[in-house]
Amino acid sequence: MADESQKWVLMVTAQTPTNIAVIKYWGKRDENLILAINDSISVTLDPAHLCTTTTVAVSPAFNQDRMWLNGKEISLSGGRYQNCLREIRARANDVEDEKKGIKITKKDWENLHVHVASYNNFPTAAGLASSAAGFACLVYSLAKLMNVQEDNGMLSAIARQGSGSACRSLYGGFVKWVMGKEENGSDSIAVPLVDEKHWDELVIIIAVVCSRQKETSSTSGMRETVETSALIEHRAKEVVPKRIIQMEEAIQKRDFATFTHLTCADSNQFHAVCLDTSPPIFYMNDTSHRIISCVEKWNRSEGTPQVAYTFDAGPNAVLIARNRTSAALLLQRLLFHFPPNSETDLNSYVIGDKSLMEDIGIQDIKGIEALPPPPEIKDKVLAQKYKGEISYFICTRPGRGPVLISDDSQALLHPDTGLPK
Amino acid sequence: MADESQKWVLMVTAQTPTNIAVIKYWGKRDENLILAINDSISVTLDPAHLCTTTTVAVSPAFNQDRMWLNGKEISLSGGRYQNCLREIRARANDVEDEKKGIKITKKDWENLHVHVASYNNFPTAAGLASSAAGFACLVYSLAKLMNVQEDNGMLSAIARQGSGSACRSLYGGFVKWVMGKEENGSDSIAVPLVDEKHWDELVIIIAVVCSRQKETSSTSGMRETVETSALIEHRAKEVVPKRIIQMEEAIQKRDFATFTHLTCADSNQFHAVCLDTSPPIFYMNDTSHRIISCVEKWNRSEGTPQVAYTFDAGPNAVLIARNRTSAALLLQRLLFHFPPNSETDLNSYVIGDKSLMEDIGIQDIKGIEALPPPPEIKDKVLAQKYKGEISYFICTRPGRGPVLISDDSQALLHPDTGLPK
Repeated sequence: MADESQKWVLMVTAQTPTNIAVIKYWGKRDENLILAINDSISVTLDPAHLCTTTTVAVSPAFNQDRMWLNGKEISLSGGRYQNCLREIRARANDVEDEKKGIKITKKDWENLHVHVASYNNFPTAAGLASSAAGFACLVYSLAKLMNVQEDNGMLSAIARQGSGSACRSLYGGFVKWVMGKEENGSDSIAVPLVDEKHWDELVIIIAVVCSRQKETSSTSGMRETVETSALIEHRAKEVVPKRIIQMEEAIQKRDFATFTHLTCADSNQFHAVCLDTSPPIFYMNDTSHRIISCVEKWNRSEGTPQVAYTFDAGPNAVLIARNRTSAALLLQRLLFHFPPNSETDLNSYVIGDKSLMEDIGIQDIKGIEALPPPPEIKDKVLAQKYKGEISYFICTRPGRGPVLISDDSQALLHPDTGLPK
Repeated sequence: MADESQKWVLMVTAQTPTNIAVIKYWGKRDENLILAINDSISVTLDPAHLCTTTTVAVSPAFNQDRMWLNGKEISLSGGRYQNCLREIRARANDVEDEKKGIKITKKDWENLHVHVASYNNFPTAAGLASSAAGFACLVYSLAKLMNVQEDNGMLSAIARQGSGSACRSLYGGFVKWVMGKEENGSDSIAVPLVDEKHWDELVIIIAVVCSRQKETSSTSGMRETVETSALIEHRAKEVVPKRIIQMEEAIQKRDFATFTHLTCADSNQFHAVCLDTSPPIFYMNDTSHRIISCVEKWNRSEGTPQVAYTFDAGPNAVLIARNRTSAALLLQRLLFHFPPNSETDLNSYVIGDKSLMEDIGIQDIKGIEALPPPPEIKDKVLAQKYKGEISYFICTRPGRGPVLISDDSQALLHPDTGLPK
């Protein structure tokens, strides 16, 4: 081991994307190991717009494991963090940094403590799967720091023990979480289906919905569904397995019509089993319903689907457009029905890839007010506007998996102290 | 046949209740005969507060079948009306009115036309099962006019062909619609379980919810569910049959806890399969969700359930309280969360059995404003008020089945002309 008197700090910084399931994970067969009752499939979102950046550091000067999330220290004592730390430490190997003169042996890791700083480039509480990106990034960066040799599949099984959906954030493009059969969860891992270049026409718009409701956490929500819903077992055993096969094929073939049909149906069925829970769980609200109606009406009028929708454990809509043209037409519809509050700055109302706003030629609030009703709306009553129901839109696309960030200036911990910058 | 030159009019007036299902009917196995894919159970509502009154008249002077609903003439050409008229006519018998000197033979009915006037003592469009009471009353009054000898069970099979749930309005108390096995629907009839005196402690409050949405008709909604939902078959074949047995037992035993559990779970599951339909059907809105949350929270805090909720094909809540004390406490909670708009007259905000308002000692809007938050609400955020989200409340109870009205002054058609008064 390196000389303890030498107060060195060794750091690694990584960036990990978030993901959104198109065939949903809802229900565990093992609460501690986080093993699902069905396979799920997700699309990884471009980390440029939604990702977690995590710096992990080790130093003989640290006397306990510590973590800061978005600048605020949080406890690492929870079982989920402990499971991830233990599993990664158990796989640590010798690490040598010749330049800094640091040498850590496999055995040293048992006694060394780590500091973790994590930062989401999107609001943590907005219900955008921040825990998926967060645990994936924690596991990925720790694995790099500790020279863990296992592949991303094995790492996904560790990230899974932090947050089920985190396992799918270890890869870019479309990813399947195979539920596995083993009791110890060793075969419950993420598998990449296609990378982000395979279907790069897709454009994703996320509508972050204003909500006053306090939502049921997905952990307790899915537990209650498994315990009380009379439909969840049928869904997990009979419905999802067929959809997984169909969805894999649709993704391979870039068959957007089938993809849309399956994505929308599975989102709706997930919310249906939530409603079938006792007491019932409502994640979607009237705004979510209005977005669905708008998309369904447009898809029907076009004959071929233009946009798929999916909703996670909250009211936010994730809308997947078949291409850039469809995405522009979608954004026009969304802005027509959901104009911003008058005090909202347009620059913070549509964020992420702002080039879509240029495509539709909208520069200011007046441009939104001047939008005509979508042509598929014949009945004036349906051309209603719901000002202020959306907080903001994020324009993004399918993206890559985790990456290491070698630029030290982007580290979240100070290279000398190992404390947040 | 009576002398045609004599311009007599023979009339019958009847009153038929509406009903609300506690185990839901959703899905047909025969669209024309209206045969359900599962049994259902309902409670008949007190006709004093929700009923249809129908006068049917026959006269040799009528040259076609005609009908007026709430004073406005409507067409009888639809298949559902035609089915009911045909089936009743086929069972007509000799009728003699010695006082008026009228004699109609069984055969005469084939050539005689009828006039029908129907009136709902509640808003037709409010989604309160007006078609159930309406078709039940049409069939019941025509059967009396034409001296049909079949019992109410047989009449229920005819009313069923007008509107499925209408068959359950042929009896008071709790009623089961047996789906039957026969292809011609002859065994798909309503069966009385217990009369309205069996469980006369129950008090029912209906919250009529304001809604701007145009709702999917239940006819097309259930067709789409049967065609597209991956869960409806499992519900109809595996879940409902067990619930029917449990519900019958709960009703027999007046076991309110089991009754509540089954009623709420089945309402939620009905809405779950609607959501599982493609495109999804939303009948409940945010206000409906808030009512459910309020009831669930209260029931949980009390340990034993105080109120069951059920929602039909619309956002209105039907709340069944275990007794008058619970109903009063429920009404306080509802008025706390959903105060009327300032321009609303309290007298038209809580209608039906107004004695509940006396029980809780509220005389004016100030009394509502002074209501304290329900004690089970610890978090102030949850003590929110949603002014104006409810149009009005109807206080009622389980009620009796159809009755003849012998008081001619209550007839809706003029005794001389057979035209609406």
